[in-house]
Amino acid sequence: MRSETKCAVWCVFMGWACALQAQEAHWTAEDSTMVSDIHRHILGEGQCVEDLRALCKDIGARLSGSPEADDAILWGARTLREAGAPEVRMQTVMVPHWERSAIEMGWMRVDGGEAEPLPIRALGGSVGTEGALEAEVVVVREFEELDSLGPGGLDGRIAFFNRPMDPLMISAGGAYGGAYQQRSRGAVESAEHGGVAAIVRSLTHAMDTFPHTGAMRYLDTVPKVPAAAISTVDSRRIARLVKAGHDVRVGLNMGCVLHEDKAQANVIAEWTGTEHPDRYIVVGGHLDSWDIGEGAHDDGAGIVHSIEVMRTLVALGYAPRHTIRVVLFINEENGNNGGKTYARIARERSEWHVAAVESDAGGDAPRGWSIDATDDATSAVRAWRESLIDYGIGDLRRGGAGVDIGPLKTEAPAGKRPLMVGLRPNSQRYFDYHHSERDVFENVHPRELKLGAAALTSMVYLLDQLDYDSLDSSTD
Amino acid sequence: MRSETKCAVWCVFMGWACALQAQEAHWTAEDSTMVSDIHRHILGEGQCVEDLRALCKDIGARLSGSPEADDAILWGARTLREAGAPEVRMQTVMVPHWERSAIEMGWMRVDGGEAEPLPIRALGGSVGTEGALEAEVVVVREFEELDSLGPGGLDGRIAFFNRPMDPLMISAGGAYGGAYQQRSRGAVESAEHGGVAAIVRSLTHAMDTFPHTGAMRYLDTVPKVPAAAISTVDSRRIARLVKAGHDVRVGLNMGCVLHEDKAQANVIAEWTGTEHPDRYIVVGGHLDSWDIGEGAHDDGAGIVHSIEVMRTLVALGYAPRHTIRVVLFINEENGNNGGKTYARIARERSEWHVAAVESDAGGDAPRGWSIDATDDATSAVRAWRESLIDYGIGDLRRGGAGVDIGPLKTEAPAGKRPLMVGLRPNSQRYFDYHHSERDVFENVHPRELKLGAAALTSMVYLLDQLDYDSLDSSTD
Repeated sequence: MRSETKCAVWCVFMGWACALQAQEAHWTAEDSTMVSDIHRHILGEGQCVEDLRALCKDIGARLSGSPEADDAILWGARTLREAGAPEVRMQTVMVPHWERSAIEMGWMRVDGGEAEPLPIRALGGSVGTEGALEAEVVVVREFEELDSLGPGGLDGRIAFFNRPMDPLMISAGGAYGGAYQQRSRGAVESAEHGGVAAIVRSLTHAMDTFPHTGAMRYLDTVPKVPAAAISTVDSRRIARLVKAGHDVRVGLNMGCVLHEDKAQANVIAEWTGTEHPDRYIVVGGHLDSWDIGEGAHDDGAGIVHSIEVMRTLVALGYAPRHTIRVVLFINEENGNNGGKTYARIARERSEWHVAAVESDAGGDAPRGWSIDATDDATSAVRAWRESLIDYGIGDLRRGGAGVDIGPLKTEAPAGKRPLMVGLRPNSQRYFDYHHSERDVFENVHPRELKLGAAALTSMVYLLDQLDYDSLDSSTD
Repeated sequence: MRSETKCAVWCVFMGWACALQAQEAHWTAEDSTMVSDIHRHILGEGQCVEDLRALCKDIGARLSGSPEADDAILWGARTLREAGAPEVRMQTVMVPHWERSAIEMGWMRVDGGEAEPLPIRALGGSVGTEGALEAEVVVVREFEELDSLGPGGLDGRIAFFNRPMDPLMISAGGAYGGAYQQRSRGAVESAEHGGVAAIVRSLTHAMDTFPHTGAMRYLDTVPKVPAAAISTVDSRRIARLVKAGHDVRVGLNMGCVLHEDKAQANVIAEWTGTEHPDRYIVVGGHLDSWDIGEGAHDDGAGIVHSIEVMRTLVALGYAPRHTIRVVLFINEENGNNGGKTYARIARERSEWHVAAVESDAGGDAPRGWSIDATDDATSAVRAWRESLIDYGIGDLRRGGAGVDIGPLKTEAPAGKRPLMVGLRPNSQRYFDYHHSERDVFENVHPRELKLGAAALTSMVYLLDQLDYDSLDSSTD
């Protein structure tokens, strides 16, 4: 930046530009004021950054079943109370309790040489190795390659699933979706073909040295073999060595175990509606995280976003028309028992959830929304688009709204399915951190986190303005 | 992520969701294929990340007039040739040649105690201090506060301009615009009131310890006093000390000097159009940077984006209808002589620039465009919006398109003003790095950089499809 003339030109470009669109009829002057107030309040006085610091630094990783998850539940309840929630309660949820062990070591051996360290992370749910295990590696990019070997074709070896996330897809989430089955099904596929373990290329576009963990599953009909992630850098190296004709053996020693299920809880903050106390708008994310890193983006961000919804609307003196529930779900990562339990109890109590909103795609700059609703309900959200664009959150797409709120849709009776909306932040950096040691507070941008909280609060406010009796979401 | 069911829901949410909008009539099947090909080509084979690494690591900072700027000009010409540009030439530009000195030291002294180090950065264009200077600090947030002191009211002291970028504005660029005059006019304002120097709070939302430099200016009628930036952390500390009644003195020793103007050059790559060889579409950014950091976001990103436009369109076998010029402008940061020279010569040669596109807002994820054009021309771009949204670049706003291309508008005869478009990436992180030591290659996200290049290339392709004879931009 140089002179004032130049600066003036540039500043208009960077920020003072006015959107090309006119205001839509469905966005009232009150809406305009409220959404502006929400943004200004959170950018100025929002506490979500400090909340996230506390969740990440005072508690840290909090896998379902762990003592840290217990701590997070207490922290969540206390923080919601301090945020002004009229009522906070626990909803008991039985969760799996899988534990990583201090014994978690990997190594590799090329052409029978010395063992070199190979950083690994057991996948969540994996059985342990019961001592050291070492075997030759077979590089696989598609499950079909194993089928061509026939049953037992892996013959005491380790399948190494090495298909990268597709770099050509614009959405990093879409690229993740194209690769994740290697992680979730790899152990079963390996065992079905005689493999003694599975290793998986970490699900990230980043070329780095951090293994990314995540859930995997077994079938009762197939032997349970251990499964671990290795980093993208190591994946590339091993694949190149094997391709060049070298004999590569990988060793694993993992002491992880699956304990009995444990009682933990969803944390529910309730704020009774003035007009429709028996109609619910849920907003939330998941309190549990994987057990490495700090679960800052996944889903600490969604948790502090959701708490900020309550804090902000209370601070602004808002009186909700519908009953607003902020729900900090437990056990999204390895079971979704929090979401399932919440939805089951809602059904048993015949609660009508008119809308459900989730933030579980990280703390990066918000861009828009993923909408799971009838055409009519989708149109109601779409009517806000031109105004949402002013706040940088006008990218509306159809799609799933979030894992935790998902069961609310399937459990609801036809005609009473919620209008479901998921916050969509920029996806490009999310998988750089996801499920790895790098998912820490320092890797969340404070202003982007605040803008996400403001977006979520605005959406909850707007959903509270809708008339659900006249909306065809009721006939989904 | 847990089970496959859960993953499927989530992946649709993250990436496979389909936009809610139908394709517009103005986006042909050919456009669809081409824009998709551009994105896939750059995400798969794009070289802009490697280009940026070379520019940042082999050359580094490249302030106008410096030997590094000379190197960057040669690098730019070579890289454009290697990218397949049919013709590359230099256009001589006279540029200012200001140099920071190895002598650049700041300190502070509270209540007459020991001097403590205070990291400073001379503002670009500042005079040196001619030895050490130490004086009491007066904290100012608005120029008007100085006026109330009357002429000479600063009385041998140092004005410290401490108004932060407004945290309540959503656009970081807008917040920058509200604070930058402290930097550009601070020295003049201080001197007019008897001040012996000016120090300025760094223009960033980040609370960190890095002073951010940038341009300032003098008036011939006012004594020239030295001006320097201090970090936001130090700014806060000094302001608090002064507010608490402490006597704070700041010392400066800066050896910076302004040399004679120097001849450098715009680098121009030309690719002749098949239908309208005498009509030009310009796309570019600026090759110069400030002299600290590596100018990675400002504007290394715009440079490698622009080079990628040429490389990609050539690689895809495209035949441009209009003549495309990729211009690497020199001296945006402290004079804009590159942009002025280019526009002056274009006018002298009566060249009709039908469109001009700039990337000078960093390498973060692209979100949309800032359009400076007639209503008719703006509508032509707007017709692409629904399709641009699929690529995450559908946020269209009116506003300045870029500093380097700015003079093209003022120099053009009425009726032949270009349709001007600026790339708008996410603005939230830009000022964390801007004009500081932190503006380095490592702080640019590779996929986001590539997406910016794909956006810019798509826009140049689309602008090449327009029929400018029928477009009312010609009667602006």
